[in-house]
Amino acid sequence: MTQPAILISEVGPRDGLQNCKCVMATPAKKRWIAALAAAGVREIEVGSFVSPRLLPQMQDTPEIAAFARTVPGLVVAVLVPNLKGAEAAVAAGADKITLPLSVSETHSLRNIRRTHEQVLGEAKAISALLASLPPGRRPHFEGSLSTAFGCTLEGPVAEAVILRCAEGLMAAGCDEVGLSDTTGYANPAGVRHIIRAVRGVIGAQNLTGIHLHNTRGLGLANVLAALEEGITTFDASLGGLGGCPTAPGASGNIVTEDLVFMLESMGLSTGIDLEALMATRRIVAEALPEEELYGFTPRAGLPLGYQPAGRAGP
Amino acid sequence: MTQPAILISEVGPRDGLQNCKCVMATPAKKRWIAALAAAGVREIEVGSFVSPRLLPQMQDTPEIAAFARTVPGLVVAVLVPNLKGAEAAVAAGADKITLPLSVSETHSLRNIRRTHEQVLGEAKAISALLASLPPGRRPHFEGSLSTAFGCTLEGPVAEAVILRCAEGLMAAGCDEVGLSDTTGYANPAGVRHIIRAVRGVIGAQNLTGIHLHNTRGLGLANVLAALEEGITTFDASLGGLGGCPTAPGASGNIVTEDLVFMLESMGLSTGIDLEALMATRRIVAEALPEEELYGFTPRAGLPLGYQPAGRAGP
Repeated sequence: MTQPAILISEVGPRDGLQNCKCVMATPAKKRWIAALAAAGVREIEVGSFVSPRLLPQMQDTPEIAAFARTVPGLVVAVLVPNLKGAEAAVAAGADKITLPLSVSETHSLRNIRRTHEQVLGEAKAISALLASLPPGRRPHFEGSLSTAFGCTLEGPVAEAVILRCAEGLMAAGCDEVGLSDTTGYANPAGVRHIIRAVRGVIGAQNLTGIHLHNTRGLGLANVLAALEEGITTFDASLGGLGGCPTAPGASGNIVTEDLVFMLESMGLSTGIDLEALMATRRIVAEALPEEELYGFTPRAGLPLGYQPAGRAGP
Repeated sequence: MTQPAILISEVGPRDGLQNCKCVMATPAKKRWIAALAAAGVREIEVGSFVSPRLLPQMQDTPEIAAFARTVPGLVVAVLVPNLKGAEAAVAAGADKITLPLSVSETHSLRNIRRTHEQVLGEAKAISALLASLPPGRRPHFEGSLSTAFGCTLEGPVAEAVILRCAEGLMAAGCDEVGLSDTTGYANPAGVRHIIRAVRGVIGAQNLTGIHLHNTRGLGLANVLAALEEGITTFDASLGGLGGCPTAPGASGNIVTEDLVFMLESMGLSTGIDLEALMATRRIVAEALPEEELYGFTPRAGLPLGYQPAGRAGP
């Protein structure tokens, strides 16, 4: 078996900070992003282009994205809710933009007051915008199926609806589709099943990434299931930053440090230096002293004789 | 695929309490064991037969074991360090006794001042004792390979040593061998590898159970790997009780509640009613108010539309 190279997409500066009560100061964000990249993180979701009234944590996204572009080799990812956000993302020079589409239409209507058709309309408009750009300036465009493993309002979402949304995003011009366990409802059997089903309609090459939460402690088990299905890109958040607004004490996003530990221990290279990654927790702790940082590996420390992937002995 | 029936062996009353600073009062232990059994837990490690000077938390094990025997259908498991402990276990009417053998000889010498040969000698003496009993009174005898995935003193343990220990335990008369990630060093690839290697020398039917920790957050991912290798018995501790003495804030044993949630969500029946199981946390919290109880699922609650195994809709 050839070892797949795993891409970890660090979403702490966006998904993490967006769910914090406090606002991280712009200079701290820059220090953190630079330190993450120096630790070997190759892709960072640095912010989202949403209304600063709604999310003051994200109001410096243009400046942060511009800074992140200066970090050599870093893929600068941003979240956008609509065409307007995509225009701002293009102006900021983002390398990758992600548009979420909640497969639970109830959730979509409640959160952004848009039907599936309306969100797919935004996807089409964004595709048209991107098609008008010179090839070198065209960001990668991902449509992300949120609440794909269940919704706190609807419960399980019918598979036919998920597949229709996946097809709709590809038809609207997305470069790929991602799966997102927004609610922390996923289990390993469900992860396998939905990956296979979605790949069955849009093709394996168009689904390579997954966004998992650890709300009920199954995050890394779900990673393992996805990995075994051939998924190679995993979102994660340093320190599980941001927690889970609906579950005090439970982390939301899977913790990057634990994910890197698992993958590297298994012999799967992430390109990330785990000790350098863990050292970046201090930047977050100093900038957001009231936020709890999660993660088992940082607390327990690395095992005696730990060897990351590619450096294993005989 | 036929769904295997999974046996969860609850080790909280032994492994959990043994690592607590406080001592749980005997009546609370009984209430807890009865409530666990009422929630559908079929096997409980109720205590260990060790010196009360060393482990005052375990001094009521004879009374607890006698009580547990009165709970209909419950398999009463105990830990014993040597022949003397096994004699006490037999006198107490235990259904299953587990003798740990640390594959790290350094760890064995440091912890119990015994070489592998000496521990295997105890195993032989225990086997002789059990062989002298009438068939109906003969407990099941498990040899448990502790530090099987690495040792805090030695680091990784050579595979040849692990296999020799497994063969030694079977040759000494054990009915089966279990694997134990005492240190929380295991990763899914290592779990698969060691299971296959050990089964290769003692036969798959003689290795059906595993004891995993969640020290570095990989506990349930390791369960998934073991499950996929055909392991059907998993140790776990309610609330991750006892924590990890060497890693404050990190749980030691995998949390029974999260394990049951994962398995049942995957359609694998455990026979355990998850809500009734979670309700038993109150008994522990009241009896040991200073102990932290872990577990993501109890904090986050069950997903909307959650259906345990065997009760899934169309």
